Amino acid sequence: MIFMFTDFGAADIYVGQVKAVLQAHAPKVPVIDLLHDAPAFDVKAGAHLLAALAARLPKGSVTLAVVDPGVGGRREPVAVLADGRWFVGPDNGLISVAAARAKKTEVFSIGWRPKALSASFHGRDLFAPVAAMLARGDRKTAKLKKAALAVSFGPDDLAEVIYVDHFGSLVTGLRAAAVPQGRKLVINGRGIPHARVFAEVKPGEVFWYENSLGLVEIAANSASAQQALGLKPGSRLT
Amino acid sequence: MIFMFTDFGAADIYVGQVKAVLQAHAPKVPVIDLLHDAPAFDVKAGAHLLAALAARLPKGSVTLAVVDPGVGGRREPVAVLADGRWFVGPDNGLISVAAARAKKTEVFSIGWRPKALSASFHGRDLFAPVAAMLARGDRKTAKLKKAALAVSFGPDDLAEVIYVDHFGSLVTGLRAAAVPQGRKLVINGRGIPHARVFAEVKPGEVFWYENSLGLVEIAANSASAQQALGLKPGSRLT
Amino acid sequence: MIFMFTDFGAADIYVGQVKAVLQAHAPKVPVIDLLHDAPAFDVKAGAHLLAALAARLPKGSVTLAVVDPGVGGRREPVAVLADGRWFVGPDNGLISVAAARAKKTEVFSIGWRPKALSASFHGRDLFAPVAAMLARGDRKTAKLKKAALAVSFGPDDLAEVIYVDHFGSLVTGLRAAAVPQGRKLVINGRGIPHARVFAEVKPGEVFWYENSLGLVEIAANSASAQQALGLKPGSRLT
Repeated sequence: MIFMFTDFGAADIYVGQVKAVLQAHAPKVPVIDLLHDAPAFDVKAGAHLLAALAARLPKGSVTLAVVDPGVGGRREPVAVLADGRWFVGPDNGLISVAAARAKKTEVFSIGWRPKALSASFHGRDLFAPVAAMLARGDRKTAKLKKAALAVSFGPDDLAEVIYVDHFGSLVTGLRAAAVPQGRKLVINGRGIPHARVFAEVKPGEVFWYENSLGLVEIAANSASAQQALGLKPGSRLT
Repeated sequence: MIFMFTDFGAADIYVGQVKAVLQAHAPKVPVIDLLHDAPAFDVKAGAHLLAALAARLPKGSVTLAVVDPGVGGRREPVAVLADGRWFVGPDNGLISVAAARAKKTEVFSIGWRPKALSASFHGRDLFAPVAAMLARGDRKTAKLKKAALAVSFGPDDLAEVIYVDHFGSLVTGLRAAAVPQGRKLVINGRGIPHARVFAEVKPGEVFWYENSLGLVEIAANSASAQQALGLKPGSRLT
Repeated sequence: MIFMFTDFGAADIYVGQVKAVLQAHAPKVPVIDLLHDAPAFDVKAGAHLLAALAARLPKGSVTLAVVDPGVGGRREPVAVLADGRWFVGPDNGLISVAAARAKKTEVFSIGWRPKALSASFHGRDLFAPVAAMLARGDRKTAKLKKAALAVSFGPDDLAEVIYVDHFGSLVTGLRAAAVPQGRKLVINGRGIPHARVFAEVKPGEVFWYENSLGLVEIAANSASAQQALGLKPGSRLT
């Protein structure tokens, strides 16, 4: 199974081109869109979101992970095997949080190069064929060599808003297991109380809860927490 | 075949997680996105839109239908077999219009529960595995028991805007078969004339027609009826 | 393999209905979304974007190409075989640029008609079944007859913005191979310098480069060229 985690835009012209390549290189492998609207240009937020999503992916899966503002520059392509899950993408930190949190992580440089490599779309020309190779179990063609990550954000939580969903709920980079449940969160000087589920609070009321990825999320019942609080990706919590 | 009808957002982080579960539980069953932007929090509008879409789905298909503002509250999960098509989702009325309009409908409670059930994402943890079971023909694991719907909106039409598409066309909950074709519709005191196709009216002109789902739809030729009329889901027709 | 290139909207209620039909008529053929947000009502821009995307599609593939503001009017359905790739859609110019640029092109009228044809959704009722037939290699059921295109925009480049992506980059209908790389582009009286990759210019700086489809694209490093320049599809270059 191949998952895609990118900032290519779900409605844009890029995902289909990548899928055509995956289909050509690994015709029988299902491809699932995990996210194509990762926060644009924000590799660190994307790394934390990917790590939270990755923990639930099946062993043996391959995730094509591309948020790559430096495409065409000096960062190298990398393949990471973390607790039995492959990740393929740029070595710019995007895969590093998932890698740092895994019990067992192996990092590989990628020696394979396509005949034609566009300057701006390595997702299609380089990362997709390599993801397909690994999904087929073919490490040899990918020319993997043991290596280390050049950029790493480490395993620690990020006390920031890392994603805003279409309901206006604010996903943070804090894992809820580390936050006492009775405790108020403080953001922009405002205290946010805890609730277990949406149905526990009044319509419009803002609260935080452990979301379905295990992260602290600030939400509002049948309303937008983003509009209520005026926050966005990058806003810091205390 | 499994269809998804949700308000999870087509571009958001939720659909991919559900598809990973479907793939794990029913690897060979194709999954098709029917809609992921059902009107948010508006179960009644969603129920009417689902009923119109459902009439065209193949017999034997399973539709995962989740618009679930009460998730984590008291509503129960339900499976409905309506004219040979399965629907799995919350018993909050969403499936009820399709159920009430079918010639033959059987309603079942769902006894199966996952080992881990998040408070906010039953679509992933509960409804998706059950939809996969039914797509595989395995009612037994799902622990279905004959039951009745707790919430039902009945079979009647809804004289409201239930959906606005990206062209700005206004889909209503009125089935066109019941409306005389020569007749004007009245909305906000303004009469809307009938036309058979877009090409029959001048660019920018607003009209109503029987859309491809058999519903009354208010549209404008090469323009947005929504902008012309200032309506939204919930606006009432007379 | 079947590709979809439409203006149905990636998040709207139409694509799923088409896929249900494709699945019913060609169950084992993978379907890939190339684009569902082609510029609305702008057949010419869509034709140039489709031609650029088409050049990369695998031989033997079938592309369902529907931007069809005249649906229900007089334009005929058409199937085109261009350099081994099928295109099925309305004969309104949409397929014509890809057809005119191919080395070998055959054009066919489509004799098959569905039992029920909605007035507004030929993509679902007519083009999808025919695309599925061709994907299965069944020209006979489709009742193809040699014909010629009624509307053609010809093979030449289009010196206009034909698409704006979600990063705000402006894709033009100019093939980069025909434009000297050192040269400035002029748009609205403003000169735009050339760069090879995003990483070559400062954050926020506007430049043009050969994009991954071989087209001239105006972009900005980690910023929106659209916001910087105030352009939209249809804006002309000199």
